Amino acid sequence: MEKSEGIEGENGITEEKQGFKDGSICGYDSLHRLLSANLKPQIFQEVSRLILGLNCGRALETIVLPESAKALSSKHDFELQAFSFSADKELLREPRLVRVGLIQNSIALPTTAPFLDQKKAIFEKLGPIIDAAGASGVNILCLQEAWLMPFAFCTREKRWCEFAEPVNGESTQFLQEFAHKYNMVIISPILERDVNHGETLWNTAIIIGNHGNVVGKHRKNHIPRVGDFNESTYYMEGNTGHPVFETAFGKIAVNICYGRHHPLNWLAFGLNGAEIVFNPSATVGELSEPMWPIEARNAAIANSYFVGSINRVGTEIFPNPFTSGDGKPQHPDFGHFYGSSHFSAPDAACTPSLSRFKDGLLISDMDLNLCRQLKDKWGFRMTARYELYADMLARYLKPDFEPQVISDPLLHKKSS
Amino acid sequence: MEKSEGIEGENGITEEKQGFKDGSICGYDSLHRLLSANLKPQIFQEVSRLILGLNCGRALETIVLPESAKALSSKHDFELQAFSFSADKELLREPRLVRVGLIQNSIALPTTAPFLDQKKAIFEKLGPIIDAAGASGVNILCLQEAWLMPFAFCTREKRWCEFAEPVNGESTQFLQEFAHKYNMVIISPILERDVNHGETLWNTAIIIGNHGNVVGKHRKNHIPRVGDFNESTYYMEGNTGHPVFETAFGKIAVNICYGRHHPLNWLAFGLNGAEIVFNPSATVGELSEPMWPIEARNAAIANSYFVGSINRVGTEIFPNPFTSGDGKPQHPDFGHFYGSSHFSAPDAACTPSLSRFKDGLLISDMDLNLCRQLKDKWGFRMTARYELYADMLARYLKPDFEPQVISDPLLHKKSS
Repeated sequence: MEKSEGIEGENGITEEKQGFKDGSICGYDSLHRLLSANLKPQIFQEVSRLILGLNCGRALETIVLPESAKALSSKHDFELQAFSFSADKELLREPRLVRVGLIQNSIALPTTAPFLDQKKAIFEKLGPIIDAAGASGVNILCLQEAWLMPFAFCTREKRWCEFAEPVNGESTQFLQEFAHKYNMVIISPILERDVNHGETLWNTAIIIGNHGNVVGKHRKNHIPRVGDFNESTYYMEGNTGHPVFETAFGKIAVNICYGRHHPLNWLAFGLNGAEIVFNPSATVGELSEPMWPIEARNAAIANSYFVGSINRVGTEIFPNPFTSGDGKPQHPDFGHFYGSSHFSAPDAACTPSLSRFKDGLLISDMDLNLCRQLKDKWGFRMTARYELYADMLARYLKPDFEPQVISDPLLHKKSS
Repeated sequence: MEKSEGIEGENGITEEKQGFKDGSICGYDSLHRLLSANLKPQIFQEVSRLILGLNCGRALETIVLPESAKALSSKHDFELQAFSFSADKELLREPRLVRVGLIQNSIALPTTAPFLDQKKAIFEKLGPIIDAAGASGVNILCLQEAWLMPFAFCTREKRWCEFAEPVNGESTQFLQEFAHKYNMVIISPILERDVNHGETLWNTAIIIGNHGNVVGKHRKNHIPRVGDFNESTYYMEGNTGHPVFETAFGKIAVNICYGRHHPLNWLAFGLNGAEIVFNPSATVGELSEPMWPIEARNAAIANSYFVGSINRVGTEIFPNPFTSGDGKPQHPDFGHFYGSSHFSAPDAACTPSLSRFKDGLLISDMDLNLCRQLKDKWGFRMTARYELYADMLARYLKPDFEPQVISDPLLHKKSS
C-alpha cells in the first residue's frame, strides 16, 4: 500500500512527497505527464497511440474553456482539463455532441472534525468545482462515490452511517440547485438511507435531471469483501437491476466502484442501451492502480459505449486505527486514493487522466453517434451468441453444475 | 492501416522500415523496449508498475534458458524471451509451476509459391522454434491462429480452403512427434476440414497431449465480419462449447482470435475451470493494436486465470488485389500483423511483448496456484450475482425484450 508517508497539509489532507520513495518515484502527477515530460515528442506520440489508443487520424483535441472556469480552477486550486473525442460524420443523423464532466476530490476536513462541519465543508469545496462545470457548459456531471463523506468503511465503525441520507436529502437538494441553474444532469453517488424500508443503507447513485428533478436512482450491484474494502459491513448488493436513464443529453448508467471488475455488470448496462456509463469509485494504490485503466477501457470497447471513471484523491486518516486482515499491525489510514479519473471511448481511445494527488474537473466532448458507429463496425452484438451464455449461466447456477472438461485419457501415464 | 510501405525481403516477407513514417515512428520493436530505451531507470520502473502491472514487491524475473535454445534462436533468427510470474507460497499446497510457450511467426514463403512448397516451408521454419521450446523445458506450447497458411480470408477466394486439414491431418502428425519427444502439450490452431460432416470447414484449435495423443479440439466461437476479416465467408461459429482441457500440466482452454472481444466467451472458459487460456490471433495495426493488451489483461483479471496472447507478424501480399469495404482502392495486402505476443496474469501483471516485426518464442513460468489465490483475494466469483445475468440474458434473447430504461419525465421540457 502507498501509506501515509506524506506531508500533512493545512486541511489535514495528506499530500505524498514529490520525488523518490522506496527506490521508486511516487510523486509524479499522472502517467501521461510522466511520459510526455520524459519522452521525445515523436516517441511520445507513438506511445500515446498504444497507451491512449489514439490512432494517427484521430487525435484527441483539447477544448478551450471559458476564462471564468479557469479562474475558479486557479482560485480554488483544482485541476481543470478538457478534451474532445472524435467521431465520423454521418449522412442521416446529426452529431449528438455532449459535454460530460467528472469531479474527483479529497475530503475537505479531517475525519476527526464534527460531522456537521465535514458536511458543510464538502459542500463548500464542491460548489466552485460544480460552478466551473456549469460555466464550461457541461451537460452531464458525475461526482465520486460517497462524495459526502470520508470512505470510512474500512473502519467497520457504524457511527459513519450518520452520513447516510435519503434520496431527497440534503446533498440532493444541494445539487438540484446547480442542476437547475446550469441545465445540467448531475449524478450524485452517496450512502443512501432507505427510510421506507426500515432504515436500510445502500450505496446509491442518484440521477438529477437537468431541470433539477430527481429522475431515479441506482444501487451498487456488487459489493467488495477484499482488504480494507469491508463494505458488506454497511450495505448489501443493490436491488435496482441495471437501469439506463434517458436524460435530455443521452442514455446514461452508473456502474458503482467494485462493479467495474464484473464484465457482466458492464454488459447489462449495455444491453439496456447505455451510451455513457459512469464508474464513480474509491480505490487505492497497490491494490488496483494497474487494473484501473484496463477494466474501464475494456468495458468501453466491449460494449460500444463511453465510460467515465472517477476515483477520489488523497489519504484519509481515521481517528481509531484498524487492522486490514493482512497480518500487519493496525494503522489509521486506507492508503492513497490515486485519483486518475479519465474517459474511455468505444473506439479504444481514452483521455489522459487527472492528477494522482489533486482535486480536479475533467471535461470531455463526445459525439454519442460514435457508439452506434462502433456497433456497426465491429458487430459485437450480432456475433455475441447470447443464447450460449444464457444457457451456460442457467446451468452454472445449479448446485450440481458439471464444468465442460475434457481430460487427457493419458493424464496419469508416465512420460516414456 | 499500416500498409505495405516497407521493404520486401528475400522471401517476399515485407519488413516495415525502421525509423520515421508519416511523422510517427513505426519501426520500434515493442512498447516495452521503446520505453526502456528512452526513460531513466527509475521512471521506467514506475511506468512498468502501471503499464505492466508490476508492483514493487513483485518483479517479473527473467529466466535463464539453456545454450541450445539460444543457439537455435541465433541460427534461425527468431526472438527468444523468458520471464517468470511470481505467486505466494501456500502452506497446504505445493507450487504448481508450469513453463508455457507462445510462438509467433511470419509466413515462410510468398503466398504465390505452390501450396505444397508453402506447407513444407512452414514446417521447416517452425521446427527449430519448437525445438527451442522443447530444449527450454516448455510444458505447454501454443502456435498462432491458422499457422499452416497465410491469413488469406481477406481475399474471399475459395482456393485457400485447400490448406484445411482434418484433426488427424499432416500438421497434427508433424506436431505429435514434437509433443511426444519433448513431453510437451501443443495447441495447434488450424483451418479444419470436417470430413465426417460433408467437408465443413472450421477455425479450430487441436490439443495434442504430452504423449503425442490428440486430446480434443475446440472450434472458434465468434466469427468476425469486420473490415478485411471476412472469415464468415469460410466458416461458421463453432459448435464445441467452451471446453477446458485437463492436461498433465494444468487446465487449459483456447479463445481463438475475435473471441477475445467477447467478455462472455472468456467468462465461460473460466466457469469451466480454465487456469490458462490461449488466444491465438491474427490481427493488424490500426484496427486493433491499442485494444490488444487491454482485452487480454482484462480477461486475466476478471476471470482469475493466465492468458497467453499470440499474433502473427509481417505483411502478407496476395496474388490478386482485393477491396476492403472501406471505399478505398483495391490492394494486395492485409496490413501489418504486429506480433506483440505476451502473457497476462490474474494479478494484473503482464510480460513485455515479443517484437512487432520478428518471429519469436515467448516463454513464461507460472505457478497455477496464483489463480485460486486471486479468487480468494478478490472474490469475483462469490460476488458475481450470476442469477441476475442468467435472467437478463434469457430476457434479452426474446424478440420482444424491453430494456430497463427510466426516462426523465421532463425530457421534452424546455430549459427555463
